[in-house]
Amino acid sequence: MSAEPSGGSAVMAVAPEGVPNVTASDDLAALLTPVLHGVVWPDGTAGVGDGDVVVISSKVVSKAEGRLVAARDDAERESAIDGETVRVVAERPKPDGGRLRIVENRLGLVMAAAGVDTSDVPPGTALLLPEDPDESARQIRRGLNARLGSRPGVIVSDTAGRPWRRGVVDMAIGAAGITVLSDLRGTRDQYGRELETTVIGVADEIAAAAELVKGKISGRPVAVVRGMAHVVTAEDGEGAGSLVRPPEEDMFRRGVRET
Amino acid sequence: MSAEPSGGSAVMAVAPEGVPNVTASDDLAALLTPVLHGVVWPDGTAGVGDGDVVVISSKVVSKAEGRLVAARDDAERESAIDGETVRVVAERPKPDGGRLRIVENRLGLVMAAAGVDTSDVPPGTALLLPEDPDESARQIRRGLNARLGSRPGVIVSDTAGRPWRRGVVDMAIGAAGITVLSDLRGTRDQYGRELETTVIGVADEIAAAAELVKGKISGRPVAVVRGMAHVVTAEDGEGAGSLVRPPEEDMFRRGVRET
Repeated sequence: MSAEPSGGSAVMAVAPEGVPNVTASDDLAALLTPVLHGVVWPDGTAGVGDGDVVVISSKVVSKAEGRLVAARDDAERESAIDGETVRVVAERPKPDGGRLRIVENRLGLVMAAAGVDTSDVPPGTALLLPEDPDESARQIRRGLNARLGSRPGVIVSDTAGRPWRRGVVDMAIGAAGITVLSDLRGTRDQYGRELETTVIGVADEIAAAAELVKGKISGRPVAVVRGMAHVVTAEDGEGAGSLVRPPEEDMFRRGVRET
Repeated sequence: MSAEPSGGSAVMAVAPEGVPNVTASDDLAALLTPVLHGVVWPDGTAGVGDGDVVVISSKVVSKAEGRLVAARDDAERESAIDGETVRVVAERPKPDGGRLRIVENRLGLVMAAAGVDTSDVPPGTALLLPEDPDESARQIRRGLNARLGSRPGVIVSDTAGRPWRRGVVDMAIGAAGITVLSDLRGTRDQYGRELETTVIGVADEIAAAAELVKGKISGRPVAVVRGMAHVVTAEDGEGAGSLVRPPEEDMFRRGVRET
């Protein structure tokens, strides 16, 4: 299903309209199937195929999994964040009072407020990230495979800030049927030397590309990316958990020189 | 020029073949013009238009700007890195000997080896980042505008690792004619509350999307992204320098709790 116009490689990302509001215990795969059948690509083709990647905002996955908790006041909001927090990485007072905390959550993701979401959720509630986003992606993939008759890869995406860079970007927090890290080790340049840049965070780049069409409040929480069939796999694979850098590789635990 | 299939929004990224090897004092805009004229989109249209974004790997920009320096041995390579380094953020011994240094370079970018590149360059040399990637982007944009008769946005992209995440991703280190930060402040969700996630690093997401088609050693150092006309501006704008988080906003300078 890879899009290959003459003389180059191409990727397309489409975010279909018409995804209904998702609530607890909705079957996301069933709910998305008609929407995905209706996807129309710039080249005029329609639907979702084997080499495509379906990118779903974690918000709708969490809503389907009933991850809403009470957050009627700051205390309840803070306790929801505490419940997801494994380690405080950085903390500072907010202009509006309260404290901004960048923490490592139980998924190993370093995020503001541990990834607890109070935007676009019912007043008095907060939305936790999926319990196991890789398992969520696997389940959605199985459901889509059964209903679509095709076997796209699935990414569960979330939005996070970065150290040293302004602006948030989307990344992959769950994945199934995707090579999340594209390993170029052993690849040689035109001078016969091995490349320095060896492992590409391709699932994060696909999630970022999908955000360009999904947007934040567009009512388009799902995008399909076509042209990346070379990273879509028959097996579910190791998932986005493998994108989390293990502590022993983390040079920023102390933010200082190691000798 | 935005690609808008029925019932959703779409983005396309194409990396054309046929970009010649770039050497010092090449006029990149002149060199890229025939290649960009030859771009064929998945929808069958051709060429590069006003709302498109041309994403160029910093490697070819640096080569055109004569940023190759001698690096015949480790000492010369280290001194090239030292010359670009403003601040060492983290440092650790490499398995193969030598030291891996994550540093802030003179552009404010936090990168391994200060962004000094020894891949895919002639033996005995190293490639420095462009002196001023935003100015590079402005010059290339002017040149493309004069030659193409259209006014695409221009991004100069580079590849970097991230703390806490495995794998490298592309980001925007130079930009002209692009809204690099998409500011949603004041936008309200369906419940009337302001969004928490307010500023999107859209130029970094476009650079990441472009990397999906450019690849590292594919001989395709340039990609064109269509469907983002809403962030392409008539003015050159503030550039990718504004994506660099100023020290007073940087919660990771000490990697510890601030009280």
